[in-house]
Amino acid sequence: MDISPITIPDVVVRRLPIYARSLAYLAEEGIESVSSQELGERIGVTAAQIRKDLSYFGEFGKQGIGYNVEYLLGHIRRILGLTDSWPVALVGAGQLGQAIARYEGFSTRGINIVGVFDNDPDKVGMDLGRLIVQSYAEMAKLIDNQHIRLAIVAVPASQAQQVVDQLVEHGVRGILNYAPIVVQVPDGVWVRHIDPVALLHSMTYYLAREEARSHVDQQ
Amino acid sequence: MDISPITIPDVVVRRLPIYARSLAYLAEEGIESVSSQELGERIGVTAAQIRKDLSYFGEFGKQGIGYNVEYLLGHIRRILGLTDSWPVALVGAGQLGQAIARYEGFSTRGINIVGVFDNDPDKVGMDLGRLIVQSYAEMAKLIDNQHIRLAIVAVPASQAQQVVDQLVEHGVRGILNYAPIVVQVPDGVWVRHIDPVALLHSMTYYLAREEARSHVDQQ
Repeated sequence: MDISPITIPDVVVRRLPIYARSLAYLAEEGIESVSSQELGERIGVTAAQIRKDLSYFGEFGKQGIGYNVEYLLGHIRRILGLTDSWPVALVGAGQLGQAIARYEGFSTRGINIVGVFDNDPDKVGMDLGRLIVQSYAEMAKLIDNQHIRLAIVAVPASQAQQVVDQLVEHGVRGILNYAPIVVQVPDGVWVRHIDPVALLHSMTYYLAREEARSHVDQQ
Repeated sequence: MDISPITIPDVVVRRLPIYARSLAYLAEEGIESVSSQELGERIGVTAAQIRKDLSYFGEFGKQGIGYNVEYLLGHIRRILGLTDSWPVALVGAGQLGQAIARYEGFSTRGINIVGVFDNDPDKVGMDLGRLIVQSYAEMAKLIDNQHIRLAIVAVPASQAQQVVDQLVEHGVRGILNYAPIVVQVPDGVWVRHIDPVALLHSMTYYLAREEARSHVDQQ
């Protein structure tokens, strides 16, 4: 039996958390209803896009009244499976891994980092506040015992594929990869990449063009 | 005068840094030529996509021989404006800002963080190895004097818009925003967002569906 007969485009799935984030801010501000126009302005998409995205999941909002913030937020959270918090394994306890382990913005948004792991004996045992760095052997045990399905990979590029293979072998199905390399995974495993340098480079493209143009204009 | 009469889709511009990153690894490994097929497998896109993306910028590669790695890498770097390194201002010296300041992967890929700034008097003066945290007043001076066009924003969501406004006022045209909020900028300013929680949530969508399905299957 298939739960969702309509396949939702991944680009829509990727926008839903942004809607949820923005609705959560509105709720915190005590705002009870919001039009697709207002929500779109906050998020940087058109009102039509929001209406189209949400139409995959049913009927929300009323013409002229807008969306009820709490109701829509609750519904998107259910769609995203965020009614409970998700246990997450963090691999890599270098500078970046340490910052991720200490970042408070995960737990407030349903992401519960339950273990930090590193294969460097100098890092194992390190106290990161709420968590102590553990070895890879402990990682496998924790993933098995707690049925962990999500992991964050913050190891050097040269180690990323090996770490991902190990995570997948133990049943991890969603990986947030900070290593600047595209990792290979079998079907049914999701990977999202974060590469700040690549994002900066996609902007230098435009800036370099502007500067070239202004040099030409000045001639 | 317009330098590039053809408008390149932003999605293509965003893929170019990934091609460059992968080609740089190939070059390091001493590999001299690569087919669009092999490059695609490393990056997770089809060979046809690579050929189409690169066709915006001219003719590369020969049927049956593939792309010359160094030549294509050099060309993509020129397209991206990466022949020189870019000076970048980093705003925010909390846990995340400190990790960014210390991360060595920026300078090796043409991104030179030239200043770290925070408005917290307790953080100003903090030694981050190569850089000392400075005040926002110093930030404005540095951006003006060094004509900085790129910035990384790693401040709390509540401060992000104000920081971005100040950066834009001083001429910054590209912003990598780590704050979990969509910031508003005038036309001609580029923003890329990094929100690890939103990326994780876009995977919980699929995982929650899988688990619901397996529960049903077991009934």
